[in-house]
Amino acid sequence: MQKTGLVVTAHPGDFVWRAGGAIALHAAKGYRMRIVCLSFGERGESQWAWKQAGVSLAEVKNQRRGEAERAAAILGAEIEFFDAGDYPLRTTPDMLDRLIDIYRELKPAFVLTHSLEDPYNVDHPEATRFAQEARIVAQAAGHKPDPDRAYAAPPVFLFEPHQPEQCNFKPNVILNIDDAWETKRRAFEVLAAQKHLWDYYTRVALNRGVQGGRNSGRAMTYGEAYQRIFPQIVEELA
Amino acid sequence: MQKTGLVVTAHPGDFVWRAGGAIALHAAKGYRMRIVCLSFGERGESQWAWKQAGVSLAEVKNQRRGEAERAAAILGAEIEFFDAGDYPLRTTPDMLDRLIDIYRELKPAFVLTHSLEDPYNVDHPEATRFAQEARIVAQAAGHKPDPDRAYAAPPVFLFEPHQPEQCNFKPNVILNIDDAWETKRRAFEVLAAQKHLWDYYTRVALNRGVQGGRNSGRAMTYGEAYQRIFPQIVEELA
Amino acid sequence: MQKTGLVVTAHPGDFVWRAGGAIALHAAKGYRMRIVCLSFGERGESQWAWKQAGVSLAEVKNQRRGEAERAAAILGAEIEFFDAGDYPLRTTPDMLDRLIDIYRELKPAFVLTHSLEDPYNVDHPEATRFAQEARIVAQAAGHKPDPDRAYAAPPVFLFEPHQPEQCNFKPNVILNIDDAWETKRRAFEVLAAQKHLWDYYTRVALNRGVQGGRNSGRAMTYGEAYQRIFPQIVEELA
Amino acid sequence: MQKTGLVVTAHPGDFVWRAGGAIALHAAKGYRMRIVCLSFGERGESQWAWKQAGVSLAEVKNQRRGEAERAAAILGAEIEFFDAGDYPLRTTPDMLDRLIDIYRELKPAFVLTHSLEDPYNVDHPEATRFAQEARIVAQAAGHKPDPDRAYAAPPVFLFEPHQPEQCNFKPNVILNIDDAWETKRRAFEVLAAQKHLWDYYTRVALNRGVQGGRNSGRAMTYGEAYQRIFPQIVEELA
Amino acid sequence: MQKTGLVVTAHPGDFVWRAGGAIALHAAKGYRMRIVCLSFGERGESQWAWKQAGVSLAEVKNQRRGEAERAAAILGAEIEFFDAGDYPLRTTPDMLDRLIDIYRELKPAFVLTHSLEDPYNVDHPEATRFAQEARIVAQAAGHKPDPDRAYAAPPVFLFEPHQPEQCNFKPNVILNIDDAWETKRRAFEVLAAQKHLWDYYTRVALNRGVQGGRNSGRAMTYGEAYQRIFPQIVEELA
Amino acid sequence: MQKTGLVVTAHPGDFVWRAGGAIALHAAKGYRMRIVCLSFGERGESQWAWKQAGVSLAEVKNQRRGEAERAAAILGAEIEFFDAGDYPLRTTPDMLDRLIDIYRELKPAFVLTHSLEDPYNVDHPEATRFAQEARIVAQAAGHKPDPDRAYAAPPVFLFEPHQPEQCNFKPNVILNIDDAWETKRRAFEVLAAQKHLWDYYTRVALNRGVQGGRNSGRAMTYGEAYQRIFPQIVEELA
Repeated sequence: MQKTGLVVTAHPGDFVWRAGGAIALHAAKGYRMRIVCLSFGERGESQWAWKQAGVSLAEVKNQRRGEAERAAAILGAEIEFFDAGDYPLRTTPDMLDRLIDIYRELKPAFVLTHSLEDPYNVDHPEATRFAQEARIVAQAAGHKPDPDRAYAAPPVFLFEPHQPEQCNFKPNVILNIDDAWETKRRAFEVLAAQKHLWDYYTRVALNRGVQGGRNSGRAMTYGEAYQRIFPQIVEELA
Repeated sequence: MQKTGLVVTAHPGDFVWRAGGAIALHAAKGYRMRIVCLSFGERGESQWAWKQAGVSLAEVKNQRRGEAERAAAILGAEIEFFDAGDYPLRTTPDMLDRLIDIYRELKPAFVLTHSLEDPYNVDHPEATRFAQEARIVAQAAGHKPDPDRAYAAPPVFLFEPHQPEQCNFKPNVILNIDDAWETKRRAFEVLAAQKHLWDYYTRVALNRGVQGGRNSGRAMTYGEAYQRIFPQIVEELA
Repeated sequence: MQKTGLVVTAHPGDFVWRAGGAIALHAAKGYRMRIVCLSFGERGESQWAWKQAGVSLAEVKNQRRGEAERAAAILGAEIEFFDAGDYPLRTTPDMLDRLIDIYRELKPAFVLTHSLEDPYNVDHPEATRFAQEARIVAQAAGHKPDPDRAYAAPPVFLFEPHQPEQCNFKPNVILNIDDAWETKRRAFEVLAAQKHLWDYYTRVALNRGVQGGRNSGRAMTYGEAYQRIFPQIVEELA
Repeated sequence: MQKTGLVVTAHPGDFVWRAGGAIALHAAKGYRMRIVCLSFGERGESQWAWKQAGVSLAEVKNQRRGEAERAAAILGAEIEFFDAGDYPLRTTPDMLDRLIDIYRELKPAFVLTHSLEDPYNVDHPEATRFAQEARIVAQAAGHKPDPDRAYAAPPVFLFEPHQPEQCNFKPNVILNIDDAWETKRRAFEVLAAQKHLWDYYTRVALNRGVQGGRNSGRAMTYGEAYQRIFPQIVEELA
Repeated sequence: MQKTGLVVTAHPGDFVWRAGGAIALHAAKGYRMRIVCLSFGERGESQWAWKQAGVSLAEVKNQRRGEAERAAAILGAEIEFFDAGDYPLRTTPDMLDRLIDIYRELKPAFVLTHSLEDPYNVDHPEATRFAQEARIVAQAAGHKPDPDRAYAAPPVFLFEPHQPEQCNFKPNVILNIDDAWETKRRAFEVLAAQKHLWDYYTRVALNRGVQGGRNSGRAMTYGEAYQRIFPQIVEELA
Repeated sequence: MQKTGLVVTAHPGDFVWRAGGAIALHAAKGYRMRIVCLSFGERGESQWAWKQAGVSLAEVKNQRRGEAERAAAILGAEIEFFDAGDYPLRTTPDMLDRLIDIYRELKPAFVLTHSLEDPYNVDHPEATRFAQEARIVAQAAGHKPDPDRAYAAPPVFLFEPHQPEQCNFKPNVILNIDDAWETKRRAFEVLAAQKHLWDYYTRVALNRGVQGGRNSGRAMTYGEAYQRIFPQIVEELA
């Protein structure tokens, strides 16, 4: 059976900068990757769009949706939008219900989402809270009961926020994304309005790569940092 | 005047596994013990009930209410249900108002509730947040004003979650429940659907008992761990 | 251009006890100081008012509004009330919208608000959460778009809660309020119903003053402690 | 059998400012109180002494010893000096051996010592580390073996450092020292060279008293804050 | 090439209770397992031995060495003693040098040692500190230089202390030790003098097993909890 | 009077990578900058040197001393070596005495040193501990008494370790080093053997620069992150 991975992000930029390597890498390994993008980033991430006189919210959303779809396609992932608003993002019971269905349908092998705290952007921890609640409720036998269903709550990995120390983000996993780097970088280029961040996140990837090499003693160039928040169950320590 | 104790839990299992010793022990000492059980555990804790084809939510609630009432009776406590839903649990202003009334009526000598964090079950910290808010508002002179009322916010003890370290639960009180153990164990047996947890929580009680003995130098066999979250005011240190 | 400072507090007492020195000091330096006081403290802080038989909520609010306005005037600040309720305080989307407008209009050089946690008063961290969300949304180009607007999110300083250690409040800034002390003390005296706190907060100011002297090697008598929560950007370390 | 209490401090000032209330209170209750004072405070706490031209280290030690003995006598405690040096304080294996003997001889019902961290004075956490190691080794059957000896490691309470938040000191016990306050204050007056601290620590005691009253709902005026570092084993929660 | 694992413990009991499953499991998988046991536990862990009138330190050490060797043999591991003393344990430069040689010779795939903190037993964190320093110095090109040497510092896993929450131990890895349980339990039985701990650590293993099952959704009965302290470098997240 | 700054580092690389911008910037502003370099980095940082057959420790030290002196000269700083050994670094009472004298002589306006923790390199926190102890003892009136001496303990800033999150390093100050960047980069080039780190630390500087711009709303390109560990005493908040 095909393995799957689920990514829950507040904004389109987030899945590109923070998890683009993991998405492309697992897609290339044959995983079905699904991105749930809660907003279009239509208010906070779209400074350039708003410089056009008279542009409407619908137009900006549309532009950003297009970009996000192109970026997801480059990474090899499906994408679904919840249109939960942006700055501020507000989730609803229906959205929770939909995300629970997605967990149960996909039975993801892992979930990627934001850090637990982010004093620079409160939509980020709201996305995390929401992803965690859906993951838990999906276990409840009494939610849309079906005695034949099998579902086990998957491990959760938090991806790296813009200013990791300020978010009390402590990476305990570094993913080697060397094989996915070119793809990730191509996805950057879709986000033309945030060109100032291309180099920033290239440097982040290179420095996480150096750290990955140091911690493993194995050569690697590009890395993505994650914080696993539930214990890992293993059969062997090395 | 009779002393009282208040227990605020998300689900029926919680007051049995986590605080059953404290409830039975204080009931036996003559305390009036009141359990506020926010949900019936009808969706998350009731896997077995949902295996019956065609069972309704009302039937499951009813079953769980019956169990919870029997367990409370064994422990020697009154029980009141708020029917706040389960997976997810959602409290309302009316529920808050009711809990404030309970605080004021009972003037509890202590309150027991969940840990501050629980990444496995978000209903648990929601119960804690709710218990704390009611405890605080009960102090407000302008809430249902009555100049003759005396009320002092009681100490709060958090009971032990399923995976204490993952919940950043740090016990600073171990209650010797040797005298209440048999009663607590009998209450376990009401929760027939969660039989797999009987032994788990028996082991927890025995290991907390060993720790209690080590920390005090006094013999004891069964313990319950608590985290006190407000400073203790004392007249003597030993 | 005149510099401004913004203070977001849950209750009138808070801006006096916790930030009165900073308000008076900066007002005297020529800053335009604006206090956003989310509630009138009409239920929790007004024990004395409620001792009068038959007093109405509107009367208590009115009394407290009068006191808060007099205290703000003594400190040299403007004050605006949001009437968000008290014990519990509940903010609304309209209030958020209004606070965003205030950030954009004032472009404050700094914001003062409550600690991130307060187990004694949940209205306090709610005020902080609200002040932070408005500060962030004010940056969004797509919120009431205006390409000509310039706005940079200001530094945030948390003022000292009643029991700092219990709130995990860790001061990293001590403001010398010697020049503002007499004014702050006069503002205390407006809060006649909380006379028992005058001496408490005078002692807090004196002890923070001693600590300020010790940490700087410079003489000072009265201090206010703050916790800065974003990195400080500097051109020189000393 | 008479109960005992043990106090391990780096300097004479420490047992007066930080634990003088507890010492006097328990002495008055009939406890045998023993202070182990690791240094005379001869280099760091004795600024005034060193202002005399030509004063010798031995003379300063002698002065401080005298003061410490008078303060201990006022508080009703025995005192023993280890002469471990001051700024820096360095303990030796012989001192450890002596402190182990004291633990075994006194079988204290509690131990009072410094906070775990103190970035302002590294002698303080060194005293704590030393007190803890002796407490532990005293349990070892193979240290000066004697099969008849009974010894159980006592609870440890950390007393309040000068700047509690900077030391990550989080008080979880407030001792009501109303009955001992006059005695504690008289002990202050022995420390004539540190007169600038009399008022500081009077204010600390008053504010801890207010906090004690708030947390307990019982009237009290003077308090001392402590951090208990091992779980408390109890038979009842209220 | 045969893989190896290194275990650095303060006392013999520690490698049995805390890491016996990992040792036996990896030995059975073909790893060369080496235990460095810093002391014989001759003073603190040997209460029963000291009940014999006139027993000498050398005799007790000898007894404990015998037990430790038998336990290691059952687990399938080599054992080496450093005789660093017990209660207190004191390491020397020669011991550090020897441990560095061991790291370089074995090139372990992982290292197991104590938690970073343990307020109940200061020998434990001293063992950790020592294991970490040797692991680091082993990397230094200038320590016994040899340009042909290849050495990469291995991942470190902290095993579970007696009272995990009090040691701020937060497990992030649970090792399934079902296949090694019988062997681990047989090793318990060598430690006849600590029979009171057999059941304690059996319960710990069973409860960690339940937690392992819950976190993974896979059946398992016995677990050992570990805290990995350096980031894990991975090629895939699931 | 000329202001001074003091830098205490374990190894030569540290003052270049971590604090080179601050050193050059303050030197250019007219500060007298003194680096105390505890070791020559002769064992851990000198992989290339040890690749030469038959090279002696003295030769390696000499090479590294030369490099460190050239780097210090480029940055505009004085440098003093303590030759405390490397991997492991061990400080002595004489070294402590010397560092105390330096504090008293220079009366630095600030001190720069390592993070409080570093699980990758235990020499780093040892340098911090040592720098802090000397800073404190320098205050003791009884250490080399001189009633005319004035000395106030300076603020301490921790510079950024190689893997900040793993060291629990939380930057709260970002220094704009745009004006010093070219000088810092030239100092990099002296460390030819660590060429692999040039780009790493250039990326660190650029990303800290971006963060500095975001947090201040002011343009800047290169930053150095610091963690201030004592409260800052201020006369104004903006």
